[in-house]
Amino acid sequence: MSFVDSLLGRPLATSEERAEHIGVAAGIPIFGLDALTSAAYGPEAAMTLLIPLGLAGVHYIVPIITAILILLGIVFFSYRQTIAAYPSGGGSYTVASENLGDGPGLLAAAALMIDYILTAAVGVSAGVEALTSADSKLLPHTLLLCLIVLTVIVIVNLRGVKDTGAAFIAPTFLFVGTLLTLVGVGVFHVITSGGHPVPVLAPPPALPATVKFLGIWLLMKAFSSGCAAMTGVEAVSNGVMAFGEPRSKKAQATLTVIIGILAVLLFGIAYLSRAYHITAMEPDASHYQSVLSILTSAVFGRGWFYYVTMASVFTALALSANTAFADFPRLARAIAAHDYLPHVFLLRGRRLLFSHGVYALTGFTTVILILFDGQTDRLIPLYAIGAFLAFTLSQAGMVVHWKNAEGGYKKHWWHMFVNGFGALATGLTTIVVLIAKFVAGAWVTALLVPVLILIMLGVKRHYTRVKREMKDMTPLNLVNLEPPIVVIPMARWDRITEKAMRFGLLLSKEIKVVHIHSDNEGDEGLEGIWDDKVLTPIRQEGLQEPELVTIPSNFRFVITPLMDYILELEDRNPGRKVAVLLPEMVVRHWWENALHGQRVQLLKLLLLLKGNQRIVVVNIPWYL
Amino acid sequence: MSFVDSLLGRPLATSEERAEHIGVAAGIPIFGLDALTSAAYGPEAAMTLLIPLGLAGVHYIVPIITAILILLGIVFFSYRQTIAAYPSGGGSYTVASENLGDGPGLLAAAALMIDYILTAAVGVSAGVEALTSADSKLLPHTLLLCLIVLTVIVIVNLRGVKDTGAAFIAPTFLFVGTLLTLVGVGVFHVITSGGHPVPVLAPPPALPATVKFLGIWLLMKAFSSGCAAMTGVEAVSNGVMAFGEPRSKKAQATLTVIIGILAVLLFGIAYLSRAYHITAMEPDASHYQSVLSILTSAVFGRGWFYYVTMASVFTALALSANTAFADFPRLARAIAAHDYLPHVFLLRGRRLLFSHGVYALTGFTTVILILFDGQTDRLIPLYAIGAFLAFTLSQAGMVVHWKNAEGGYKKHWWHMFVNGFGALATGLTTIVVLIAKFVAGAWVTALLVPVLILIMLGVKRHYTRVKREMKDMTPLNLVNLEPPIVVIPMARWDRITEKAMRFGLLLSKEIKVVHIHSDNEGDEGLEGIWDDKVLTPIRQEGLQEPELVTIPSNFRFVITPLMDYILELEDRNPGRKVAVLLPEMVVRHWWENALHGQRVQLLKLLLLLKGNQRIVVVNIPWYL
Repeated sequence: MSFVDSLLGRPLATSEERAEHIGVAAGIPIFGLDALTSAAYGPEAAMTLLIPLGLAGVHYIVPIITAILILLGIVFFSYRQTIAAYPSGGGSYTVASENLGDGPGLLAAAALMIDYILTAAVGVSAGVEALTSADSKLLPHTLLLCLIVLTVIVIVNLRGVKDTGAAFIAPTFLFVGTLLTLVGVGVFHVITSGGHPVPVLAPPPALPATVKFLGIWLLMKAFSSGCAAMTGVEAVSNGVMAFGEPRSKKAQATLTVIIGILAVLLFGIAYLSRAYHITAMEPDASHYQSVLSILTSAVFGRGWFYYVTMASVFTALALSANTAFADFPRLARAIAAHDYLPHVFLLRGRRLLFSHGVYALTGFTTVILILFDGQTDRLIPLYAIGAFLAFTLSQAGMVVHWKNAEGGYKKHWWHMFVNGFGALATGLTTIVVLIAKFVAGAWVTALLVPVLILIMLGVKRHYTRVKREMKDMTPLNLVNLEPPIVVIPMARWDRITEKAMRFGLLLSKEIKVVHIHSDNEGDEGLEGIWDDKVLTPIRQEGLQEPELVTIPSNFRFVITPLMDYILELEDRNPGRKVAVLLPEMVVRHWWENALHGQRVQLLKLLLLLKGNQRIVVVNIPWYL
Repeated sequence: MSFVDSLLGRPLATSEERAEHIGVAAGIPIFGLDALTSAAYGPEAAMTLLIPLGLAGVHYIVPIITAILILLGIVFFSYRQTIAAYPSGGGSYTVASENLGDGPGLLAAAALMIDYILTAAVGVSAGVEALTSADSKLLPHTLLLCLIVLTVIVIVNLRGVKDTGAAFIAPTFLFVGTLLTLVGVGVFHVITSGGHPVPVLAPPPALPATVKFLGIWLLMKAFSSGCAAMTGVEAVSNGVMAFGEPRSKKAQATLTVIIGILAVLLFGIAYLSRAYHITAMEPDASHYQSVLSILTSAVFGRGWFYYVTMASVFTALALSANTAFADFPRLARAIAAHDYLPHVFLLRGRRLLFSHGVYALTGFTTVILILFDGQTDRLIPLYAIGAFLAFTLSQAGMVVHWKNAEGGYKKHWWHMFVNGFGALATGLTTIVVLIAKFVAGAWVTALLVPVLILIMLGVKRHYTRVKREMKDMTPLNLVNLEPPIVVIPMARWDRITEKAMRFGLLLSKEIKVVHIHSDNEGDEGLEGIWDDKVLTPIRQEGLQEPELVTIPSNFRFVITPLMDYILELEDRNPGRKVAVLLPEMVVRHWWENALHGQRVQLLKLLLLLKGNQRIVVVNIPWYL
């Protein structure tokens, strides 16, 4: 226990919940890392699609990022309102299911679950990829490195929300600090040089242009790819409950800081790329460098600052998976509370978090990492679709929320307008992303969403049936309290079967001792000792005599004739309970189990599977 | 069931045992394949060690094989006597333990078990190696091929002794037929050519000699290696029970035929090798051919007969593993009957054989094949040591047997002499083999034997203790038949807990309903409904009131406080039984298990592990 305690922290009492609540400073690494790190790959994703334009492409990046920033602004104001309206956690699932109904709620739930699982897998593998591209000797160990990073994140998360925030504060602030410095110094150079800065290290020349101008299709694709920069914005609204009071205010402040920094970074990177004439490189080029790497080299050269920046990007990317770990368990809990997922997701673990959600996410992420051998970078475009679907549903839900709120649309027209505009913008974006990325893999998401919804509906159906069958508000029924018929399988007369007989006599007057007699070598049956050992003492006490049932078994089977007898007995005595007493040896060492047949275990299992409400199994343990 | 029936045959009733008995013709493939196929590698094993002598080596092979044949003759006569004296199976284990005591018995048992496991693994891999050396495309699939051959042998064996004999008769007789033809035709050529036969295909030239004459060490090593040809001779004496009456006669006849053929083959191959000036090739030479391949080419050329002979050798080698499958289960049964191995080895399966022995041997063989990646040919020398140790102990035991037999050594002096001489000869050989092969791997056997003996002693100790504790020849004790204290864990009031309450009231008047109350969200406890639903109807019936025990759980644990309560209750009530009633949901589909906590299973396990004789678990199933 001591090892577990020091690894995961001592158990927290339910009353200690308040102490686990976090503030803005811890909220940024916990819920913001996913959003912030998208600054590292969002602009590059858009710029990669501009490569065919050659050097002319640099002129398009600022407008595209500006469009994305406008969308980001809309989403930001929408979620600010949502947080205020849902102080106990306003994730897309909650908002959509409460305002739009179960169907849209499940759609949001499925989209978000896929989004979070992919976020975790992609975050880990992107971080490791950055590491392996720095030292190609590590390349063969990609999968192992991924699993190590995952393990670290899981352990930190299992220590609870507060410890997670504390652990990730430093890398997050280093990442934000270096990138803000890069943008600040870069912009300063641009301004002082009159718009024509001299790069310290010249960026690689742009590839020759293969197209002349930006077509609408290419524009759509570049915009869609750039939208990857917006994933993770949902996180804060889902986790409002993690903040201390005043909850909504702190959550809103956290969201504001995150979006603000993200906007500065995105615009700064786009602006500097144009000023320094930086184009993206083909990802499979021999001397591939990321846009961030080229940009940092251009502004600072390859000094210590370059390496600190790159290291902070690697670390932040690897840890960005943490956002998924912070939110997935809360999402799963919300869904399970509506009976759409197994109820284990409702249980709070030793550190007060919904540990089973962490386990489930770890399992799914591990499976994906192993399936793709740690090469999940191709999945990056896929998860934007889930995020945008959730955005749209959440904001459409908010429109209905305001309409039904006290005062109606007259009082809340402005709120309705903001959320409605947000829903429209993100809805259109969802369609654009789906079309632009369908062949590249969005079809996987489009396929997984209905599958997940079907599973959740099946779970709900099961729980509904169980509740209906189990619910009993009538008082205890004491009619017909008849003792059961007791069945004791007996191979020989020894102390453990004697114990079973004694217990059987307590239970009922009607006892059947069943002996399976196979004409195997040296098996004499029980008749020889029955009168002497059993009947005589029972007659002396004046108790009712148990019946000895000997069943011959020509084929040396034991379980089958026993099962047949019990089922037939139950059939012949309708309304009576049958209690099967199974003596069970409990050995001192696990290996000793191999020295005793496992027939009792098998019989127990079969009685459970083939039995019915009227058959009860009683284990009589015998400690060796 | 139908598929199993057609694969493994219908179940056989115990009364059908006689029909499963075999005759001499079936006995040869079942018990003789291992011995007979050693003709294929025994002479070669000796000749490989003569390579340093160059062409001069051919002169030594006949004397060495003659020495081995003399030893074989001694062993043959010894085992003939053993079979007559032990008509119910006279394996080394039985003979040694009955006459020399438990210690030597266990030594023989351990040696033989290792021998059989290695026989199975080496047989399979030698057969596959012959196949892969014919077509090197198959080489990467060695392990897979080994496992396929093993599967076939296991399935055939699981069909029972009779079917196994029938299946293996054809390949055995083909092997014996082709090799006898080879020897016969070869000897005819030698005689008609006046001792200087002209090979159809000249054997590859002998390597240049590196030593001048045969030193004692080299002679010992060549002799030891050639002794591999004697493994498998034990098999018949172990399996006497498989034969029909007159059992001993049929077993003796089978042994005679097997040894007779083996002697002819061994001597024939040695004689022809000298006549045709055939030397062994280094096994890792580029165009490596086995001695048998060179010999057949020399006598017949590379026509159809060559290929038939080679194919029959491959098949017989692969199937030689079958001898282990015929004998290991009988050996394990004999050891288990003395409580030195788990009792499952005593059970006869659906086809009347000791199936668990087959399973165990299959398991060990698979592990060895996987560990060595199917390259077990280096293990060939190892298993001769086990076989010779068993020979020695068996015959030493027979000496004692005759001495103690009616009439004593005056009447049986000839039997004693034969067995005594056999014991001496094989004992010396054991020492020679152990020394000559110690570094090459016999040390593994020397290490495994004591480990196995320790395991068997541990098993015996366990069974002795259990028998002592369990044995109860006193009649049923009806004193102090007091009803148990019933404990019912209850999370909420529903139909399944109501069922548990009803059953509890049948068991005892003293009922404790335990409710673990964690101050988790929305948990109101049972107090609210307790009076209304439970106490009122019980008071109406005038029954004793159950006690509601509410235990707070600050850390949301459920199992721990429950276990603590039960153990404390048991502690406070010495002499009383505690019956814990555990309601258990039985779902319709396996996946539905994921939707219900597995707390009940965990609690059951813990009660079994931490509980004691006085705690009884009652499963109350509820079928959904």
